Amino acid sequence: MKRLGVIGGLGPMASAYFLELLVQMTDASTDQEHLDVILLCRPTIPDRTAAILDPSRESPVPMMREAARELERIGACCIAVPCITSHHFFEELQPAVSIPFLHLVRETVSHLREQGVKKAGILATTGTIRTRLFQDELERQGLSYVIPDEAGQEKVMHLIYKNVKAGLRPELPLFEEVSTGLRKQGAECAILGCTELSLIKRDYPLGPGYLDALEVLAKASIEFCEKPLKPDFQNLITR
Amino acid sequence: MKRLGVIGGLGPMASAYFLELLVQMTDASTDQEHLDVILLCRPTIPDRTAAILDPSRESPVPMMREAARELERIGACCIAVPCITSHHFFEELQPAVSIPFLHLVRETVSHLREQGVKKAGILATTGTIRTRLFQDELERQGLSYVIPDEAGQEKVMHLIYKNVKAGLRPELPLFEEVSTGLRKQGAECAILGCTELSLIKRDYPLGPGYLDALEVLAKASIEFCEKPLKPDFQNLITR
Repeated sequence: MKRLGVIGGLGPMASAYFLELLVQMTDASTDQEHLDVILLCRPTIPDRTAAILDPSRESPVPMMREAARELERIGACCIAVPCITSHHFFEELQPAVSIPFLHLVRETVSHLREQGVKKAGILATTGTIRTRLFQDELERQGLSYVIPDEAGQEKVMHLIYKNVKAGLRPELPLFEEVSTGLRKQGAECAILGCTELSLIKRDYPLGPGYLDALEVLAKASIEFCEKPLKPDFQNLITR
Repeated sequence: MKRLGVIGGLGPMASAYFLELLVQMTDASTDQEHLDVILLCRPTIPDRTAAILDPSRESPVPMMREAARELERIGACCIAVPCITSHHFFEELQPAVSIPFLHLVRETVSHLREQGVKKAGILATTGTIRTRLFQDELERQGLSYVIPDEAGQEKVMHLIYKNVKAGLRPELPLFEEVSTGLRKQGAECAILGCTELSLIKRDYPLGPGYLDALEVLAKASIEFCEKPLKPDFQNLITR
């Protein structure tokens, strides 16, 4: 039996929701058919965005490496990290272990490509946009993309930091405005590329044309560990 | 820093919700202030209720012992198990490790006592009722209790197995009928003594006079690991 390793706590609520997605998306009718998971929830791992924007800040890499080695030692067959910004550090982390890191960004773009999407919109933190995590991978796989304009990006950050992270109701009209902006620029689908946006999708119906990157990571985890996926979750783009 | 160990996957959804409760109830304003958690989600641990009702069935004890030892080795300072029926096996499990198991049943009854409750109702599976997990502890701490009559207990099992475990909406009028029955017998508060009932409380407003045992376990975990609890969660009985 294959055991999924998870480095969590970045943030902690996304880790809890990721576990919930694994349960919801696995085609199991008894407890015993679900995934075996080892989750190391280490919220003290230094802030990823801060380290990217200011290289003088403490790097999250040493603690993440240690967690990865621990997961390998306990018997994980692969590692999922339910935190998008962290993927910026994957090239530094992978050499620490011989089990693979599941790459949420790569998997998300592959899913778009498989579903025939040619042009995607990106909804993510300013940090993720600046590191070009999604843009570079979209280009690599031959897709084009659009991002919000400056005012739109401020609305996305407001939703993430002033609404969800602050424990308040998301201002859905803001969300709608940014999405409409992306569609006007030709996006066929908008990537929810930040786990706070995944939490908005969990709690509110967003309508068609969104792909939640956290759901993609759950799908990739279930498949890598050779568990059956519920048929409803083969195509994760909302309809 | 104190690290919480969790044996999970019994069932998997309760483990995800337990993590969510830890996040919601900790008084933290940044990721870094949250609990450090190691969760071993081992859904293949044999069914607890089956082993209690039929001693010829495979016991969950050996796999739970192994998980407990693993948690101790990785540095957990205590162990929480978000599965009520499992507590039946705690006396067999505790000698395997030198770190304490946090006892959800004992903590729940202590909480009722601290809040001045004299007579509690018990909402739990027929298995939990038969093992007298809650009844014995309530007696030990000097509280009296009531349980549903046979028809009421069938309604509780219907809610757990035919509604929640089946992924359907709970039939709340059934819930209301059983609760009213317990109150007529003099219960001042009803214990939600099954994690499926905790999931009903998560999703629907139940009104006053309930104590969710999973919330009690989250509170005990946060306190044992010396993290601050949000003031709203000092008294967990719904008002």
